[in-house]
Amino acid sequence: MSSCWGNHFKISLFGESHGEGVGVVMDNVPAGVKIDPQELLSFMARRAPGKDRTSTPRKEEDLPKVLSGMQNWITCGTPICAVIANTNTHSSDYQEMESAARPGHADYTGFVRYQGFNDIRGGGHFSARVTAGLVFAGGVCKQILAKKGITIGAHLLRVHGVSDTAFDPVAVTPETLLLTASSSFPTINAEAGEKMRVEIEKARLDCDSVGGVVECCAVGLPAGIGSPMFDGIENLLSSILFGIPAVKGVEFGAGFACADWLGSQNNDPFYMDEKTVKTSTNHCGGVLGGITTGMPLLFRTALKPTSSIGKEQKTINYITNEECTLKVRGRHDPCVAVRAVPCVEAACAIALCEILSSAHTL
Amino acid sequence: MSSCWGNHFKISLFGESHGEGVGVVMDNVPAGVKIDPQELLSFMARRAPGKDRTSTPRKEEDLPKVLSGMQNWITCGTPICAVIANTNTHSSDYQEMESAARPGHADYTGFVRYQGFNDIRGGGHFSARVTAGLVFAGGVCKQILAKKGITIGAHLLRVHGVSDTAFDPVAVTPETLLLTASSSFPTINAEAGEKMRVEIEKARLDCDSVGGVVECCAVGLPAGIGSPMFDGIENLLSSILFGIPAVKGVEFGAGFACADWLGSQNNDPFYMDEKTVKTSTNHCGGVLGGITTGMPLLFRTALKPTSSIGKEQKTINYITNEECTLKVRGRHDPCVAVRAVPCVEAACAIALCEILSSAHTL
Amino acid sequence: MSSCWGNHFKISLFGESHGEGVGVVMDNVPAGVKIDPQELLSFMARRAPGKDRTSTPRKEEDLPKVLSGMQNWITCGTPICAVIANTNTHSSDYQEMESAARPGHADYTGFVRYQGFNDIRGGGHFSARVTAGLVFAGGVCKQILAKKGITIGAHLLRVHGVSDTAFDPVAVTPETLLLTASSSFPTINAEAGEKMRVEIEKARLDCDSVGGVVECCAVGLPAGIGSPMFDGIENLLSSILFGIPAVKGVEFGAGFACADWLGSQNNDPFYMDEKTVKTSTNHCGGVLGGITTGMPLLFRTALKPTSSIGKEQKTINYITNEECTLKVRGRHDPCVAVRAVPCVEAACAIALCEILSSAHTL
Amino acid sequence: MSSCWGNHFKISLFGESHGEGVGVVMDNVPAGVKIDPQELLSFMARRAPGKDRTSTPRKEEDLPKVLSGMQNWITCGTPICAVIANTNTHSSDYQEMESAARPGHADYTGFVRYQGFNDIRGGGHFSARVTAGLVFAGGVCKQILAKKGITIGAHLLRVHGVSDTAFDPVAVTPETLLLTASSSFPTINAEAGEKMRVEIEKARLDCDSVGGVVECCAVGLPAGIGSPMFDGIENLLSSILFGIPAVKGVEFGAGFACADWLGSQNNDPFYMDEKTVKTSTNHCGGVLGGITTGMPLLFRTALKPTSSIGKEQKTINYITNEECTLKVRGRHDPCVAVRAVPCVEAACAIALCEILSSAHTL
Repeated sequence: MSSCWGNHFKISLFGESHGEGVGVVMDNVPAGVKIDPQELLSFMARRAPGKDRTSTPRKEEDLPKVLSGMQNWITCGTPICAVIANTNTHSSDYQEMESAARPGHADYTGFVRYQGFNDIRGGGHFSARVTAGLVFAGGVCKQILAKKGITIGAHLLRVHGVSDTAFDPVAVTPETLLLTASSSFPTINAEAGEKMRVEIEKARLDCDSVGGVVECCAVGLPAGIGSPMFDGIENLLSSILFGIPAVKGVEFGAGFACADWLGSQNNDPFYMDEKTVKTSTNHCGGVLGGITTGMPLLFRTALKPTSSIGKEQKTINYITNEECTLKVRGRHDPCVAVRAVPCVEAACAIALCEILSSAHTL
Repeated sequence: MSSCWGNHFKISLFGESHGEGVGVVMDNVPAGVKIDPQELLSFMARRAPGKDRTSTPRKEEDLPKVLSGMQNWITCGTPICAVIANTNTHSSDYQEMESAARPGHADYTGFVRYQGFNDIRGGGHFSARVTAGLVFAGGVCKQILAKKGITIGAHLLRVHGVSDTAFDPVAVTPETLLLTASSSFPTINAEAGEKMRVEIEKARLDCDSVGGVVECCAVGLPAGIGSPMFDGIENLLSSILFGIPAVKGVEFGAGFACADWLGSQNNDPFYMDEKTVKTSTNHCGGVLGGITTGMPLLFRTALKPTSSIGKEQKTINYITNEECTLKVRGRHDPCVAVRAVPCVEAACAIALCEILSSAHTL
Repeated sequence: MSSCWGNHFKISLFGESHGEGVGVVMDNVPAGVKIDPQELLSFMARRAPGKDRTSTPRKEEDLPKVLSGMQNWITCGTPICAVIANTNTHSSDYQEMESAARPGHADYTGFVRYQGFNDIRGGGHFSARVTAGLVFAGGVCKQILAKKGITIGAHLLRVHGVSDTAFDPVAVTPETLLLTASSSFPTINAEAGEKMRVEIEKARLDCDSVGGVVECCAVGLPAGIGSPMFDGIENLLSSILFGIPAVKGVEFGAGFACADWLGSQNNDPFYMDEKTVKTSTNHCGGVLGGITTGMPLLFRTALKPTSSIGKEQKTINYITNEECTLKVRGRHDPCVAVRAVPCVEAACAIALCEILSSAHTL
Repeated sequence: MSSCWGNHFKISLFGESHGEGVGVVMDNVPAGVKIDPQELLSFMARRAPGKDRTSTPRKEEDLPKVLSGMQNWITCGTPICAVIANTNTHSSDYQEMESAARPGHADYTGFVRYQGFNDIRGGGHFSARVTAGLVFAGGVCKQILAKKGITIGAHLLRVHGVSDTAFDPVAVTPETLLLTASSSFPTINAEAGEKMRVEIEKARLDCDSVGGVVECCAVGLPAGIGSPMFDGIENLLSSILFGIPAVKGVEFGAGFACADWLGSQNNDPFYMDEKTVKTSTNHCGGVLGGITTGMPLLFRTALKPTSSIGKEQKTINYITNEECTLKVRGRHDPCVAVRAVPCVEAACAIALCEILSSAHTL
């Protein structure tokens, strides 16, 4: 099973880039939640392509059609199915590539995995377009969580050597988290955003691409949510985050950096803030033993540079097994990390709905 | 469910640090596999404490008792249950801490999660001791995989600023991977190992601890194993790796570094090595689209410094909610990353058994 | 999660009776299977309503639209999503019932379960219409199984006191199993079918309904498939069969009858038929210890009479909590067991795909 | 996976009849539940063999050793592992049978399933002895449910033509349900029990065995628990009940009988009992659309006659594939249905804990 996620709050993604459409079935959504369709569409619009030159020129409105599970945008409690039709497909761009494996892409591994039967047009089920269903589901989850006082936000922390201001691990506010939702480019610091755009545009003009890091944070979570061992916050989040195409790393709090630290530096001292237990630093990213501390949940996700680039590359034809060269045509984002920002927020929201669902026992 | 992992090849861990024992039930192990008990015990001995000053002085032999699922060390196909008795417990060390939350540890979050009913002696179910069951299961899996030509090895890549030689992402051999299995300290480069020991001993004498990075690699995997979206190699590995106490980050191939790269640098060109498709670099860590390329599977895991340190720290008493200070007593590893090396190998072996099990469809 | 089934071969049903449509997502279908669309549509037509007076006069063609996972009716290996649009809905029939609980129906329990937010038009997600997605999935599975030499068939064994000829538990042939696929009424014995029609028509004219028993059989299964305890053939089949609305009992082989037998009567003696192990009787229904014997798999499913009847019944208004009477309007099958026949075949086919998927271990 | 059950409240059974022991791991048990060990042992004693001639003369005390998850019989919230050692094993009884397939038993199917590697002594993992772990888990669950006002009871409804008084589907009381817990033979009507004992003893003396039906009921369940489609009360109960060796049928409420009824007979009219919605009959067994009505949950389970009988039977040697005859030696219950009564209660209790766990959403 590649495309189902969750045990208590389940999503099932489907669709190929150039098929009829992509979509999602959400199971075990609580009944009676009023969803704001404008807010949902705004969230999906952040993932939609074609807004500027940092993303693919493929323009699609990504309007979801809800087939089941809601009446007048109120959840019924039964499975929600949403379909986003594919309207703007240029399959001819993929003719040449039908047998030349794009380096860094899943063309070759998908061919072996599915014995050549998978739909390769536009990357098929490996396409980032499949994240439209993820973002629909995540948008619904964000609204469910917001009603519980939980706010999720993400931003582009780094692109090809340029860094945005990081979230304050202790004092980040919901307002800061919501900043990127209304920005044309998902950074906290507008100047950093401008520098990133320059890097991305430089890569684009050079028929190349760049990678990035997305930092995500959730505030408003109670302490005591999650579990030790395999159902911890980190396990569940990473297992869904690596489902976003191009993600190659996930770290929580200080993450890899803390490998160079002493325990006395890394440990977050507890203190009482009135009647609430808090920590004065938050190197653990809001998670100890797989369970929330009540401090901001903070993690970073590394995204590799878009693999589809126009530059000539060495590769092989996976049908004839002959070596060849390839310049990838088609419309591709020069930096997938930009549109990955709402995807990371969506994955976080879905994972938190799962974790909160499982937090209630008998 | 905190302590079950896997869908096709399932493990269920149990036990507390100072209870009767810890252990594991493994379900869906193939029938008829001959397990070499000496090799299994040697593997478990790598995790066992008390060997030198880099680990806790708690000495336990960690001899597993197999209650079911094997006859004369041949798997029956039915569930295998193994129990490792707890023999050397000093619960009195934990008296003071019974209500002072160790900074960086799960004392406080566990208290909230289990409303104070969890067994806190020795960290209870949050203790690294629970990994004895994980390592038993991983040792069985390593032998199953070895019969299929798959070799797994890991080493301490970094400890508090000191780096070991990294695995060659393209040309690493099974021999290199097996090096640490027979070393007294798990590095490839003995000199780097000595420097790490110095760092760890320095921290220990200073009542402090240090973090580290474990690099792990598997060779011999066929191409085409895994799935896109949520059942990919990266999703499954990270979801089990974050179950090892103290893990705060997981990255594959170039990982976070590739966020600063261009696509043309990061993409791994394909070429034909005789009749085999290979890549001339391996920045993707052997995984594209969640599916193996057939090149070495390569990932790194960040471990925070041991949270239990003797240095005085500010904290709170989680019963009275009063602020206090704490010097942690008890026997603790000054660097959990050392004994985490076999745990990472074990988690990798279990995950690969799951992935290979699910690779067979109808 | 109400509407997902399966661990290795997963289906996720969605839809409400009077919403946009109903459908299914199938995950982990093997790649490269050629599906015959005519055969699939014929199978779905057996479930479709409106064919004669034994079923609801609601006429719908039930044409599935495949959104993903197939190209030219060849499976891609990626998730298949099929949607069957709702075209012929009379929601006004349900006005009166909006608050009067139909006795025997899920109106009241659904109201409590979903706090009144579920879509009640046409029974919503509780409607037998949701089985259209089940039958699509089952139709695909039947074709997958047929390519492996496995044939599934079912018939109406009993309706309101009238019995059809039972399948021969030992010597039933694929030809017999396929008989009902081409009949206008799903019995083996046409005369029995006529008598059942009479009973059903009598009930219909009397504003009443009747129950029935569906007998189902699969031949061609190898011995040794399934597992002891909870992943046995009986566990998996019953867990999906009870998902068909109105099912109240499931029994295998001699079933409840064997409770009155001696062991020496019930045990099926083994013998050698050339080089094949067979049993001379088949009271176990082809399953011992949860595992197939290689003999025909045989089970029966009891369906209660349609709960929606025109006769006046005592009930309560579940909003005002006042007692009232109700004559159910709307278009309802006077005997759900008739159209349940292909549903039972579909459920059997899906369960067998799951079982065969899980039969392959490492 | 054969031996794990549950999604939110999980059990993992292990053990073979003549191995070291049998047992269970329970995951996601709520923290802080005080378990009465005497009550638990009394419940387990009802399953233990050797009490009189209706069961196997193999005498074992079945004392569970709790390895984890409880302190002073209070649940910690972490996994509970209990082991019941095997102390009284006569493996020599199984020498002859090592290659003669017992008709009606899983010897042959287990041999094929596990390629001959399974432990066949005493039936191995197929032995009813494995239900000791199920009954331990069920005993814990019964106590958890009792604290919520839910009472479960079962009795032998029928043995070889003799019937006990059935539970009153509408008015059954907790007191009636608890009757069999303190009886030496599990019937409501002592006279019926005596007649059953006569039938069982007659079969035993004749080297034969008899089947039976166990009726089980739970009262105190709230309305609105469960789900439509695949996570309904009937689906979950049947999926665990068929895990009890020898179970061949499960039916709810009127079950198979309602197939002969009219809707107007079968539908249960709703009425108001003060402020509570009730039904005046309970043919649905307390479940509509997979969801509880709040009336008693009522179901019956058919158990085939013990397959291991002393009478000479025709069979085959599954290694040499030669036909032979077999008189089964060893100590076997002449009627497994007797000791299945607490097993059915245990399965019901575990299933209800799962259902109640999943009833809490976000």
